[in-house]
Amino acid sequence: MAERRDLSDEPLILISNDDGIDAPGILALAAAMDGLGAIHVVAPVNEQSAVGHAITVRDPVRARPWPFRVPSGEVPAHAVTGTPADCVKLAINQLLPRTPDLVVSGINRGPNTAVNVIYSGTVSAATEAAILGVDAVAFSLCDWHAEDYESPGRVARLIAQKVLQKGLPHGILLNVNIPARPFEELRGMAVTRQARSRWEESFVEREDPLKQPYYWLSGHFVNLDEGENTDLGAVENDYVSITPIHYDLTAYEHLDALKAWDWDE
Amino acid sequence: MAERRDLSDEPLILISNDDGIDAPGILALAAAMDGLGAIHVVAPVNEQSAVGHAITVRDPVRARPWPFRVPSGEVPAHAVTGTPADCVKLAINQLLPRTPDLVVSGINRGPNTAVNVIYSGTVSAATEAAILGVDAVAFSLCDWHAEDYESPGRVARLIAQKVLQKGLPHGILLNVNIPARPFEELRGMAVTRQARSRWEESFVEREDPLKQPYYWLSGHFVNLDEGENTDLGAVENDYVSITPIHYDLTAYEHLDALKAWDWDE
Repeated sequence: MAERRDLSDEPLILISNDDGIDAPGILALAAAMDGLGAIHVVAPVNEQSAVGHAITVRDPVRARPWPFRVPSGEVPAHAVTGTPADCVKLAINQLLPRTPDLVVSGINRGPNTAVNVIYSGTVSAATEAAILGVDAVAFSLCDWHAEDYESPGRVARLIAQKVLQKGLPHGILLNVNIPARPFEELRGMAVTRQARSRWEESFVEREDPLKQPYYWLSGHFVNLDEGENTDLGAVENDYVSITPIHYDLTAYEHLDALKAWDWDE
Repeated sequence: MAERRDLSDEPLILISNDDGIDAPGILALAAAMDGLGAIHVVAPVNEQSAVGHAITVRDPVRARPWPFRVPSGEVPAHAVTGTPADCVKLAINQLLPRTPDLVVSGINRGPNTAVNVIYSGTVSAATEAAILGVDAVAFSLCDWHAEDYESPGRVARLIAQKVLQKGLPHGILLNVNIPARPFEELRGMAVTRQARSRWEESFVEREDPLKQPYYWLSGHFVNLDEGENTDLGAVENDYVSITPIHYDLTAYEHLDALKAWDWDE
């Protein structure tokens, strides 16, 4: 919200991701934030896809300065030997000069819709920021082979401006999924819920040269949700999907039914 | 629910954890399940704490048979080179003779209450089971230095019996936290919600022999929630905390407010 900082101060924007600090998506995201505030990039030195909300608790993490340019010039950046959640923790507690006003994560190569949110390192960076009390948005481009991030960069800039202006409710982050379309062909922004879905999975079993088996995870994604207002439905219809998500996992609607079980019998 | 299987068939119970297949907690959990059904253990070969809902997508996983005994004799078991979620995926899709009736995870050494649920590998094994449509319970003992699992084993057996008898709602798993108390001193079972909380974190900065900095995550846990009915409040008062959790992260209560933002301006 505008009142929470002196208007003469520019906002501080932390940028992270899970594809790694040299991924094209984070370069595009940083370029998209250029001019909205002071930028600091803290991202994994190596790709960290599908790490979920992992953090490093048994080993130290390292951070080293990294050359990082946006159109207006060089910005401070650190590459971290850890997960996206580690990056955000280390940035906010140690590397940044003050608490940031906004954390943006991405732009992920590939969607983070439906059940996939729970596996997403991109989303976990934004979740960690929300846990630490900072507004946060995760951006994903719905194209596993994306090369062109011009359109999602423009979307990210619009959404970041809006969040800087309005502020998010406490404990809420935004999970944004952007169709792989030229900006002019996007039909608008849609506030959505996660679709119910599952992976129909299998493991490919192989034998190594020592005759020992190993398994590759394989599978295809199944949308189980034909209802209104889903993230999957939005992106299929060329809308940018904006899902508010939280990190309180309590299934409140089932508390009463479970209390009625005779637990102490 | 009783009607979903032929009563002449014994239930199949998959057991996993994040502390590793040779941790005392999983030995106690398997012993506690002995006699409730056919048991199959599939757990990480190495400790996987704080991995959150990570899965292995870039590398193959390996599973090797592992000698595992419960009081009634030897049971099938596999040690897996992967995360708790990998173990459950591989077990259900590949290693087990059929879909299990129940997945139990733990008994974790240390609590998984409040915000810590999101970092928990123990919970992620149960979450993965719920995603795959199988009833699941995560068990944690509120003692980081636990040696004696007799009391939590008895609690786990009672809860597993109840879940086998009643069945859980679709998409819901139970996150159980057990006070470190003799069974007779536990005051009962309480159905709870996650407490609001945060870690007050810091990183200890050190320098390695090559004069390069590295950081250790450190911090202390802060309960921000003095309300009723929390997981933290239950275990502090010697109740077993049973929290129903789900994996749809949509913050439904904020959808309307966000829709009212002028997104397309």
